[in-house]
Amino acid sequence: MAQWIWYPSDFEFYMGMKVMSARTERGLVITPGWRMENFYNSVRFSKKFELDEDAYIKIHSTGTQCVQLDYGWYAHYNPEEGLPVTKGRHVICINVYSSTGLPSIYINCPGLETGEGWTVTCDGRNWKPAGYWNFTDVHTPPTDFALETKPIKPTEIMDLQDGTLYDFGQETMGYLKGEGVTGSGHLVICYGESKEEALDTEECCIIEQVDVGADTKEFRVPRAQAFRYIYIPNVPGISIAHLSADYEYLPIINQGKFESDSELLNRIYDISVRTMHLTTREFFLDGIKRDRWVWSGDASQSYLMNYYSFFDNDVCKRTMRFIRGKDPLATHFNTIQDYTLYWFDSLWQYYVYTGDRCFLEEMYPAACSLMNNYCLPRTDERGFLKADPQDWVFIDWADIPNMNVGDISFIQFLFAYALKAMANIAKVMQDNQAEERYESLFKSLIDKVFQTFWSDEKGCFTHGPACEPNAIVTRYANMFAIIWGCLDEKKKKSVIENVLCNKEVYEITTPYMKFYELMAFSEAGMHEETEKYINSYWGDMLRLGCTSFWEKYDPKNSGIEHYAMYGLKYGVSLCHAWGAGPILLFAKYYLGVRPTTPGYRNFVVAPHLIGGKQISGQVPVPHGCIKVQLTQENVIVENLSKGIGELHIDGKIYEIPPEGGVDIKRHEENK
Amino acid sequence: MAQWIWYPSDFEFYMGMKVMSARTERGLVITPGWRMENFYNSVRFSKKFELDEDAYIKIHSTGTQCVQLDYGWYAHYNPEEGLPVTKGRHVICINVYSSTGLPSIYINCPGLETGEGWTVTCDGRNWKPAGYWNFTDVHTPPTDFALETKPIKPTEIMDLQDGTLYDFGQETMGYLKGEGVTGSGHLVICYGESKEEALDTEECCIIEQVDVGADTKEFRVPRAQAFRYIYIPNVPGISIAHLSADYEYLPIINQGKFESDSELLNRIYDISVRTMHLTTREFFLDGIKRDRWVWSGDASQSYLMNYYSFFDNDVCKRTMRFIRGKDPLATHFNTIQDYTLYWFDSLWQYYVYTGDRCFLEEMYPAACSLMNNYCLPRTDERGFLKADPQDWVFIDWADIPNMNVGDISFIQFLFAYALKAMANIAKVMQDNQAEERYESLFKSLIDKVFQTFWSDEKGCFTHGPACEPNAIVTRYANMFAIIWGCLDEKKKKSVIENVLCNKEVYEITTPYMKFYELMAFSEAGMHEETEKYINSYWGDMLRLGCTSFWEKYDPKNSGIEHYAMYGLKYGVSLCHAWGAGPILLFAKYYLGVRPTTPGYRNFVVAPHLIGGKQISGQVPVPHGCIKVQLTQENVIVENLSKGIGELHIDGKIYEIPPEGGVDIKRHEENK
Repeated sequence: MAQWIWYPSDFEFYMGMKVMSARTERGLVITPGWRMENFYNSVRFSKKFELDEDAYIKIHSTGTQCVQLDYGWYAHYNPEEGLPVTKGRHVICINVYSSTGLPSIYINCPGLETGEGWTVTCDGRNWKPAGYWNFTDVHTPPTDFALETKPIKPTEIMDLQDGTLYDFGQETMGYLKGEGVTGSGHLVICYGESKEEALDTEECCIIEQVDVGADTKEFRVPRAQAFRYIYIPNVPGISIAHLSADYEYLPIINQGKFESDSELLNRIYDISVRTMHLTTREFFLDGIKRDRWVWSGDASQSYLMNYYSFFDNDVCKRTMRFIRGKDPLATHFNTIQDYTLYWFDSLWQYYVYTGDRCFLEEMYPAACSLMNNYCLPRTDERGFLKADPQDWVFIDWADIPNMNVGDISFIQFLFAYALKAMANIAKVMQDNQAEERYESLFKSLIDKVFQTFWSDEKGCFTHGPACEPNAIVTRYANMFAIIWGCLDEKKKKSVIENVLCNKEVYEITTPYMKFYELMAFSEAGMHEETEKYINSYWGDMLRLGCTSFWEKYDPKNSGIEHYAMYGLKYGVSLCHAWGAGPILLFAKYYLGVRPTTPGYRNFVVAPHLIGGKQISGQVPVPHGCIKVQLTQENVIVENLSKGIGELHIDGKIYEIPPEGGVDIKRHEENK
Repeated sequence: MAQWIWYPSDFEFYMGMKVMSARTERGLVITPGWRMENFYNSVRFSKKFELDEDAYIKIHSTGTQCVQLDYGWYAHYNPEEGLPVTKGRHVICINVYSSTGLPSIYINCPGLETGEGWTVTCDGRNWKPAGYWNFTDVHTPPTDFALETKPIKPTEIMDLQDGTLYDFGQETMGYLKGEGVTGSGHLVICYGESKEEALDTEECCIIEQVDVGADTKEFRVPRAQAFRYIYIPNVPGISIAHLSADYEYLPIINQGKFESDSELLNRIYDISVRTMHLTTREFFLDGIKRDRWVWSGDASQSYLMNYYSFFDNDVCKRTMRFIRGKDPLATHFNTIQDYTLYWFDSLWQYYVYTGDRCFLEEMYPAACSLMNNYCLPRTDERGFLKADPQDWVFIDWADIPNMNVGDISFIQFLFAYALKAMANIAKVMQDNQAEERYESLFKSLIDKVFQTFWSDEKGCFTHGPACEPNAIVTRYANMFAIIWGCLDEKKKKSVIENVLCNKEVYEITTPYMKFYELMAFSEAGMHEETEKYINSYWGDMLRLGCTSFWEKYDPKNSGIEHYAMYGLKYGVSLCHAWGAGPILLFAKYYLGVRPTTPGYRNFVVAPHLIGGKQISGQVPVPHGCIKVQLTQENVIVENLSKGIGELHIDGKIYEIPPEGGVDIKRHEENK
């Protein structure tokens, strides 16, 4: 089937520009301060082919086209009729130029069709396999890509404060529409993720303005925006008979399931999935009101949650391509040092979960260049990644002294595991030399990390070098050490005792890092702590009426204090991807499913009860899913995949056959 | 005066995309195979400033705008009213995004106006001085830049071949317009630089198509095209009362003059100036029909001709910025090795002629990076510039065996003088370390060039290494050695005898390389040969009725054979910048004016008679001109500049004072 083709990753840069310029505040477009990549405006496609018959080759393109056949002069032809080509072997080169839209072509002729096997160059020198994705309809080029929409209506309409408040019942995102509009004047539409925000016409973050003329019978605002509530102050003479919206979404379906005895946990799961769906669009966004941007650190959690819910490879690939950008890089991803480092492990984890070797192959040169040309030249004699004075070392929002300065255990740990990811990837690519080099760099760095940051005295990793007199302990490096499983039993026990269970150590307050801390709790078998935290943290947000999970929640706040951030009364994003962490926690640690070889060729099911006496659910895997039902009495696993699993339960291991299942009665004593 | 500002060189890349996609053949847009640079779509401007009063700062922008004042959160303001700012000191950062047009801003408030002193970044990290140029009107942002137009009419209209032929009297470029159009149908407009081309509806290079509907009273084709003749085949029912055009041109004025006793030479001068004006547009183009592209090698001649005619610094700067492109380069300029090398000397010569240090300063980092990161890493142990297998080593069109392979004296000479240019530039930039390095690289390379390519046996430079048994002689390195003046008297004499005057050595057949050969003739004092050649080569084109000079002319051809190239019946460009060489030859070698220190602070006038008993003319210099009148009896030089000159005549030297003149009676014996 013929496909529209383009320069690889340029579809992502083309869409990325639109996405990164879609955030508004009080009607002003807020764009990021880092570099925005553009697609190449002029590219050259090429293919060798053979025709059985003379033919007219019709070239559909999203820009100007000119053709050189068999390396000859530019062909003179009528694009409507097609390029006349005689039967036999040929080489075609097609230049396509567009100043505004992604240059792409579509050919569907016997003997020559666009798709796999085409190459493309932006400079006449370096040829790459052309990019393509699902654009098989000649009438729908990639420049026409749009998310889907469906109409939604408010669930409640109230006259308030000399205006009308529309409640759409839950957090959503879409294009607001007015129908049956009469009168004329200037409407200001106030959006709110909370009721308070919508009603606060002076300080709500999102507004749209509509000029209503005598002929305006209906309107649709040009931008999809995030909201639950809409407030429209009355304008004398104007009335709107019906206000509704076109909900805009990526058409993907949650392929995971989770159910427990706890209605609260079930609701937490559902709202997590909705939060995840709303933030999963052209790319993984951080939040749908703010920032509406693609942040590498945020995305690295979204990938993982996606593997346990929508299992949509495409959005992962789009996001990773977009974040990677073009060489030469001028800054770390999103200007943040840690955000570059996450990308490597995210790429490796993508392979672990999906088994999609093609994408590894596509990204391998870019991954190597990122490591070899950007990261490794920024290391010191110990192999530590240095920060330029202008680099942003984020780690987390936390009020910890010297959190972001000097040698930081967490950053060097991340860097070590970026090297490890590269070694793993190089191995899959059968690039032995690179594998050995990355493996050896990893080993030498991880040794140095232990030497520098492990404190025998404190029984854990310190934040800065352990030898410094004022060395403090933070959770970051310690919890990642647990997740990565790089500690011996003694050290692991020590870290659990001295850090994970130690209330004296600076607490994690953001759901962002809480995601990893709860993973660490789970890895350390601290299921009760996890459950307790989920019930209180996410449970509290639900009790406060949330319909999607928030960017941050602090139980010490009350009322609209919850919404304030960055000096803005409603600065907090109330639908933030990193709030959806329970998706992963429930599936990976309670249903207990995880791949042990890439693409779930082998996997483990190690379930654990939460929220009562039984849980059940399913986890998507490539071409199938794994269903788990756990009660105190028994455990049933259905393997609807070709992988081979192991059930780990009550200290025993049972093999789970491909496309088969196990139904195990649990021993009384293990309940 | 406030100025629109943008990311430096991005105005050139923005315009460059339009220019490089304006070439058509038979209605198809022909784009180059090398990389087309785009502007950055999202940039961030910044400035420290102080206000005496509270004010509303109105920011005009060609894209979305968002502002951070004093490094705070994004400001909420009404762009129509302006940003409220209190009196006192502030720092403003403004993000501007546009997907389609160059992002630029304009502010004209007391205490804060755009122009010099602003910085801009595309990545939030690397800040550069913002670019600006003559856009002082708030209502005319750089995205509105357009060349000027004025109406022109055909000088003759003929009914021919079941159609109408319009002769506009001379080669021109513009938008064709029809008025008083009646009827309906599909018009095909055939353009011709020659009458034969216009009438050849099947093979003329340029066509435009116009759909005439019942309501079409007039039309204007969307593209400016090159033509002298227009042929419109009759379409039953359609008539056009008036066909005319909007001539499109860069509003610059020839500030040079040349007159001699020879009407032919005077006409050659006028047509050269017209050729030069037609090809001097947004940038220096090679030709206005084909390629309509910016070629670095062609431009390097246009710069020089410009200094002796229009003396427009701006088009030089635009062209040099555009050609330089963005790092990292993927290929040599226009993919041609020699074309990268010309750029360096062109930059240096720009300074020599204009004295514009600011532009050197602007381009210095890009020049260093081009040399250090692109050229020098491609040298071998001898310091020779290597060609990648895919590099195009052009030199010239010539049927010479092994013209473009192996070690080539001409290429290494060019490279040496690129290094010399860099040493000169570094000296002006007071970058002593770089100056020493480039100077030493130059010296070592030029030694190696002499060692490798000078043949004592042949008394000249060979094309490949002199030691090779089949080493042949070509003119390229030899004539450049004369131009650059790097030969001692003995070698110079030998080269003149063995190459310049030697008809056995492969002849130069293109006006491109003829430009340099005639310069070499002149430098070698071979004025008669030059005059003879000008009279025959350019004279012949005039006798064939040309109204602008051609890309190539071969006296062996006749009739429409003159127009054929690249397998196209009318492939030759009949208005080609490199055809305008007499501009430089007449001014530099007959009026004899040239700078000896940058910006004509010092200069030489060494006139020589051509075409009869007297010549007169003027040469533009920064802020003035130098007028020269030479007869057999006397020579008058008027120096309308602040520079100090020397008149070299008849073996004597006379000082020419600033803003003064000399009037010298020549000795009988020297006439």
